This record gives sequence, structure tokens and C-alpha cells, in this order.
Amino acid sequence: MVTFDDIKQAQTLISPYIQRTPIMQSSLLNGWLGHEIFFKAECLQTTGAFKLRGAIHFLSQLKKHNALPKHIVANSSGNHAQAVAYAGRLFNVPVTIYSAKNISPIKAAATESYGATLNRFDTRVQADVAVKAASEQEGVVWIPPFNHPYIIAGQGTAALEALKQVDDIDMIAAPCGGGGLLSGTIVTARALNKNIDVVGAEPLAANDAARSLRENRIMSLTEAPNTLADGAATPSVGEHTFEILKSVDAFHEVDESSIIYWTQWLQHLLKLHIEPTCAMTMQAVVNYLSQQQTKKRVMVIISGGNISQTSMHKIWEYDCLDTLPSLGLATRI
Amino acid sequence: MVTFDDIKQAQTLISPYIQRTPIMQSSLLNGWLGHEIFFKAECLQTTGAFKLRGAIHFLSQLKKHNALPKHIVANSSGNHAQAVAYAGRLFNVPVTIYSAKNISPIKAAATESYGATLNRFDTRVQADVAVKAASEQEGVVWIPPFNHPYIIAGQGTAALEALKQVDDIDMIAAPCGGGGLLSGTIVTARALNKNIDVVGAEPLAANDAARSLRENRIMSLTEAPNTLADGAATPSVGEHTFEILKSVDAFHEVDESSIIYWTQWLQHLLKLHIEPTCAMTMQAVVNYLSQQQTKKRVMVIISGGNISQTSMHKIWEYDCLDTLPSLGLATRI
Repeated sequence: MVTFDDIKQAQTLISPYIQRTPIMQSSLLNGWLGHEIFFKAECLQTTGAFKLRGAIHFLSQLKKHNALPKHIVANSSGNHAQAVAYAGRLFNVPVTIYSAKNISPIKAAATESYGATLNRFDTRVQADVAVKAASEQEGVVWIPPFNHPYIIAGQGTAALEALKQVDDIDMIAAPCGGGGLLSGTIVTARALNKNIDVVGAEPLAANDAARSLRENRIMSLTEAPNTLADGAATPSVGEHTFEILKSVDAFHEVDESSIIYWTQWLQHLLKLHIEPTCAMTMQAVVNYLSQQQTKKRVMVIISGGNISQTSMHKIWEYDCLDTLPSLGLATRI
Repeated sequence: MVTFDDIKQAQTLISPYIQRTPIMQSSLLNGWLGHEIFFKAECLQTTGAFKLRGAIHFLSQLKKHNALPKHIVANSSGNHAQAVAYAGRLFNVPVTIYSAKNISPIKAAATESYGATLNRFDTRVQADVAVKAASEQEGVVWIPPFNHPYIIAGQGTAALEALKQVDDIDMIAAPCGGGGLLSGTIVTARALNKNIDVVGAEPLAANDAARSLRENRIMSLTEAPNTLADGAATPSVGEHTFEILKSVDAFHEVDESSIIYWTQWLQHLLKLHIEPTCAMTMQAVVNYLSQQQTKKRVMVIISGGNISQTSMHKIWEYDCLDTLPSLGLATRI
């Protein structure tokens, strides 16, 4: 089980290599909602997402134990590929990323620009089979995207940094895909102050974690979900993350129209290029705030900013900016 | 004529009230272009644009001369309205904004949320007539959007701050609407280092400033231009700004497809919600860099981040991210 000491140690190990991302606020949003919302802008992290924290921590631990491999492999078509490519270059270890051939050109270009070799396969399943075979060769290490204590501890440093940057937070919210970020957030918040509520969010269209929490066992999506929050479209959480996720204070399933609404509003108010996956979390925040009797201070982890043209076009198809945010809008899901 | 001393004094006067906005970089972009590009993120300025610098400086000067008015008026449907509304509240002077009734709901809401009264008229011309009548009443002061020494000096502080944040800049680029930002940039750059080139950019579809520079007299657009760079759609520059603009080192007219290309790429690479008006400037930067023999350090002023849903939908209609930025792409205009 990942402990708060693991996360503090991760912070020490990775701090020379990562950005201490800023906290952003919108005075208009605070005025409209009547509470104070702070945003931890991990979209401004190197490679555009919090994923770098886990990848660098994983390699830092191997280096500390004199166990840096000859070669690193990972399977991903998204933020994890870029994070591993960047981290490998930093530690002078060659990286090969296994992905489906439909990887977006921009993510492929970024991965290769960071120095990784990209092996494209007809399907994601074929890529997964190939990475497994590669990882069994001598001197090769596979870096998993979330379900590993080193990754969870690394990703938990985002919350640790955020809660050191702003005092007296009542609630902290994060999105849930594989659960690395949210479980790292839970461990951090519990250790710093037992009174901080931790709230998670997931797309209703990819609600494997919510179903897993209800059934008390890990449930998997049976097919690729149709959601704009692609960072939270992971088929299932892992055994390591699930054990921690069980103690989350509240967990919300967010529909696609709410995801679009908050992506437009957060991009507009914060002037940040924010992924639907993290904007989604604002619906959970509004659900929480609508049940509070006193003014609260909330931290939201903005997890990333890598968005395809197709998604951007869908996000901005109709106007959500003509309806101001308010707690009355909150839809209990 | 505005001097560098005026800009330094403006910086002192406004610094308690404005954000010292950060400098951003993209290592991928630098690698692809082979030069170092620094971005001054004025989209993260309070109210979402550099315009606040001019409005606060204008009122700071009046306060310094014990001449704060009883009432402030301004005519705008855009960033200037929000800046004046915010600045008026800061100095405890009531503000009335005169705008056409087609002002976007989001800009109207922000203006009113900052405490200003919004008077809507059927047309922009009617609003302009009404604000002139109002400004002639006793105790009322009209704050112009760009053509005033106080406004130019205030807007010039963006370049002053940027050139203090990063050393050894070879060229600084800014967009040109009414010319306040660009002329303030020229005065600043000339005073700090005569070797810094200053480059301006304007939409080809609203090229009144380029035509004015060619004809050596102020030319006006005869009808509302059709450009996504709405912050540079001003009908003409002013006498104050034009005198300074004459000494710009290069001035580029940018077509709409280049404006869209760079808005997509800068939003993606910098993870900032950047207006087409400032993304446009990157085409001028690429034109400049394609003529250089040695590696250059360039500063680009990202002027704002207030974008309507309609514009966002147009910007992201087709995919520009499948064509990587390079100097070979540069289209000489």
C-alpha cells in the first residue's frame, strides 16, 4: 500500500525535473458560486499532463536502486506515451512506445520529438501483446500507466504540491481514469488533514470505477466508451488503485453535456487549454457545493491539456457560455 | 509623444493592481523552428487581456493629479469594456459602458459582474453617439481604447515587463488593432536596446494599418472586416499611435488560414486559451525567422484570451495539427 511517506519521498526525487505548476483562480466564478475554487494547473506541466510525475518517479526509484534498465517500453496512445518518452530521455534510457496505428499525428509527433521510437500496430490489442513480449526480454522494463506503487506515489505529488500552495482547503477533487491520480490524492489529503473531503469524477459513459465502488469489486468496461473525457476512458481501475479508491468521500458520474459545459467555461474563465477529463471534475465540485451550508475552499486538479482537433470541434459545437455557472445548475447524478 | 520614462512611470503606478504575467515556452516548437520563442502570457492578465494595463494607468494618472471623475464612460463590446469596468471598481468610480445590443452575453456578464452599468443600443454607431453626449456632462470622463498617451504608456508596460523577464531578445512581436500595444512596444524596445527588432502583425482582411504605413497617412476600413482576429478589427489606428508605428521594423498582413493554423498550434503547445488576434503574430515571427542566418531569441506578446463560442467552433473546424510548424511553411505576405 502506498503511504504518505512514499509520496513525500517521490516529491523529493522528482522535484528537480518537474514544473511546480501554478494555482489559478477565477474571481468571476468564485462570485457566481459563492465559494473559493483553486485550480492546480497540471496542464502546464511538461508534456502537458500530470502523467510525467509518475513516469519520472518510476525511473528515479530504479536509478536510486541502481536498477536503470537498458531499454524502456510502454503501451499508450496518449499522455502516458509522451511522459515515458520524455522521462526516458531525461535518464538516458532508450524508449519504445507501442501504440495502435490510429494514434493521433500530434501525439505521435510529440512522442518521437522527445526521442522515443514509436511502433504502430493495427490494433491496440496487438500493441499490448507486442509490449508484453518486449518487456520479457532481458534488460527491458515496462512502465505501467497507473497500477503501480511508484506511479501512484508520483502522481500523488500533484495533490501534495497543491495543498502546500493553498491553506485551509475543505475539499479536493480529481478525475478518475485508472485511478492513479485520485488514489494518490486520497493518501495525501488523509495524511495532511483528516477533515479534507476527497471527491472523484468519472464520465457516466465510462463509469467502471463507480460501478466497482458500488459492487465492491473491480468492474471493467466491455467496449470502448463514447466520451469526450478520453483520459478517463480506461477500461478498469487496478488492484493497487482500487484499494485506496474505496475510501473516497464522494464519487460522481458526469454526463457528456456537463463535460462539454465545464470544458467551455473553464477554458474561458481560466484561459487555459483544459482537457474535458479534468473540466468534468467541476460538475462533482458543484454537486458537492450545492450541499454545503457554509463557504468552502475547494482545490481542483486540472490534470492535462492534450486535446485533439476532433474533440475541440465537438466541445465548441454549441454555446454553453450563454448560461452562467451557478449552484442551481447542479444536476445530482 | 509617449517616452520610455512615461512607460516606466506607468509600470510603477499600475504594478500594485496588475498581474506580472508569466513567460511561457514550448520546447517542441523551439526544436521544430530551430530558434527560441518566448511568449508573454497576457491572456492570464486580470480580465483576460493586456487592456487592463492602459485602463488602470489612465485612472492612476487622474488620481495622481487629484482629478478622478465622478463617473467614467467607455464604448466597447470587447476587452476594453471589461478592463474599464474592472479599473473603475478598483478606483471606486462608477462606470457605464455603451455597447451595441449584439454584445456577446459572456462579455456583457463579465462587464456587469465587475460592477459596471451596461447601456445597450441598436447599433454601435448609436452607442458611440450616446457615449459622446454622456462624456460632455460635468464630472464625466471618457476612457479611450488606445489613442491616448496614458493608454499607450500603460499598454507599453507589457513589453517592458517581458524584456525584463528574459535577456538578450533579438526581436519582439505584437499584434496591431488600434496600435496601442504595438506602439508602446516600439517605444520600450528602442529605449532598452536599439538592436531589438520590433515586428507587427495585422489580419490581411483588416489591413488598415499596413495600408496606412504604405501610404504614410491614416487609412480607415470602410466596412466591418471579416476576420477571426476580432481584437485587430479596429477601423483605423489613431494619430498618437500612428506616429510611433511609422518606425516599426517590419509589419505583416496575415491571412485567415494562417490565423487559424497558429491559434490551433499555440493553444495546443502552450496549453493556453489564446485569441486568434495574438496567435496571428506567430506568422510574422515565422516570416522573420525564415530570413535569419543565426539562431534568434524572439518575444511574442500574447495579448488576450477572450474568445466567443462561434470563433472557437470556426477555429477548430478542420485539423491544422496534422501539419507540424516549420520555417518552410512560412508564406511571405
